[in-house]
Amino acid sequence: MSTQNINHKEPRITLVGAGPGDPELITMRGANALKSADVVLYDALVNEGILDYASPDAIKVYVGKRSGEHSYAQDAINKLMVDYALNYGHVVRLKGGDPFVFGRGYEELDFAAGYSIPVTVVPGLSSSISVPGLQQIPVTHRGLSESFWVVTGTTTSGKISNDLYEAARSKATVVVLMGLGKLKEIVKLFQNEGKGQLPVAAIQSGSTENEKLAIGIVDTIVEVVEEKGIEAPALLVFGEVVSLHPSFLPIREFFNALKEEQ
Amino acid sequence: MSTQNINHKEPRITLVGAGPGDPELITMRGANALKSADVVLYDALVNEGILDYASPDAIKVYVGKRSGEHSYAQDAINKLMVDYALNYGHVVRLKGGDPFVFGRGYEELDFAAGYSIPVTVVPGLSSSISVPGLQQIPVTHRGLSESFWVVTGTTTSGKISNDLYEAARSKATVVVLMGLGKLKEIVKLFQNEGKGQLPVAAIQSGSTENEKLAIGIVDTIVEVVEEKGIEAPALLVFGEVVSLHPSFLPIREFFNALKEEQ
Repeated sequence: MSTQNINHKEPRITLVGAGPGDPELITMRGANALKSADVVLYDALVNEGILDYASPDAIKVYVGKRSGEHSYAQDAINKLMVDYALNYGHVVRLKGGDPFVFGRGYEELDFAAGYSIPVTVVPGLSSSISVPGLQQIPVTHRGLSESFWVVTGTTTSGKISNDLYEAARSKATVVVLMGLGKLKEIVKLFQNEGKGQLPVAAIQSGSTENEKLAIGIVDTIVEVVEEKGIEAPALLVFGEVVSLHPSFLPIREFFNALKEEQ
Repeated sequence: MSTQNINHKEPRITLVGAGPGDPELITMRGANALKSADVVLYDALVNEGILDYASPDAIKVYVGKRSGEHSYAQDAINKLMVDYALNYGHVVRLKGGDPFVFGRGYEELDFAAGYSIPVTVVPGLSSSISVPGLQQIPVTHRGLSESFWVVTGTTTSGKISNDLYEAARSKATVVVLMGLGKLKEIVKLFQNEGKGQLPVAAIQSGSTENEKLAIGIVDTIVEVVEEKGIEAPALLVFGEVVSLHPSFLPIREFFNALKEEQ
């Protein structure tokens, strides 16, 4: 682009985590950054209600990628971001969740640094912790889990991450982002570790009006997810902490009844 | 306590994550909950500036525990929270970071449920992701890390978590909370896995005016932490992602020079 920098504003970029979806779940600092933005570049995972924090005069550009569409490649987003900063001043790059949790935020920061444009980072609520939390499923809980491990279900190569094999073996609460499409494969990893009865939750569009929850155990979760019609974006939580959710009570009672029959 | 409920307000509790420290890093919803609080119970890890979001008329009670002092046991906090809700209405229980990341938030929620007091959860920025992020250290980055594992350095028994042995073996970025006091022991675990040259960061009081950073490798981090005078509260980040921080550059150059000499 060759737009003139009419305002002669100093170019700068703020990488802002928008949180899981609900506009109230952005930080005060994130909302303040939006208020002073000349341009906002936002993702598919960002709830458009969040754009209301920005000035009506700010330029808002959708650069989202949903799986399947490749409206913007990462390269194009990087260039667009720098170009807008050079021409308009303050660019807020608004990303779903936290910019550094599978968000490719560092690539954008690094690209901007190459043009000597100062970049500030405003963290956001990662869905990995906040989406289970809103369902009152704690990622850690005394006696049930001393750690949690967050893994991507879909790597650059399209395969499930090797880290997921190790995670399935561990005692950590395992949170899988972008893993719904590979649910059967992921379930298999846990079954191979003899964890067929480990509690599992699948949560779609956490914190938004499209939120849906499926709760089961490793051996049943594929079926429950189908029944409930869970679709992407969704995350998976594998771990005993899921048993604390009220929906798990009938499942526990069913297994206890089975045990008594034996 | 036997204080009368003068306002006859419905008792309710909001469990709010305050984030890593900086008052601007609370969510909009967290700040809004504080605005309507009749009572705020807050922790040692909460920056007192955050209390300014609450009404000047709200009762503010410090229930913090710093290691060493045991001003309030968890039982006492639970009872206080319920008692205030029954007598004054809306209690905001404000916790550092996120309520469910080693925050014992679920225990408080469970206790309140026993009194049929409705509890809402407002997640907060966990320091595990946001504190490295503010230092522009991404917990995940293509080619360097496909996952991150968050572990507590200090379990109920006072020992380091067993999960940390597995974490040291894994390819995940490992974030250790409350681990500074056990740094030598933790470093040993990574050395036992042949990871003496893995990059490490120790960050004290992230996002506050007391923030301090130490960057090194597994073999040198104990020394660097001493030099920089890092004190609790601090978190540790073990992983190649730490090498992206500008302070790591001289360390990398030193090792490259060593290699050339050989």
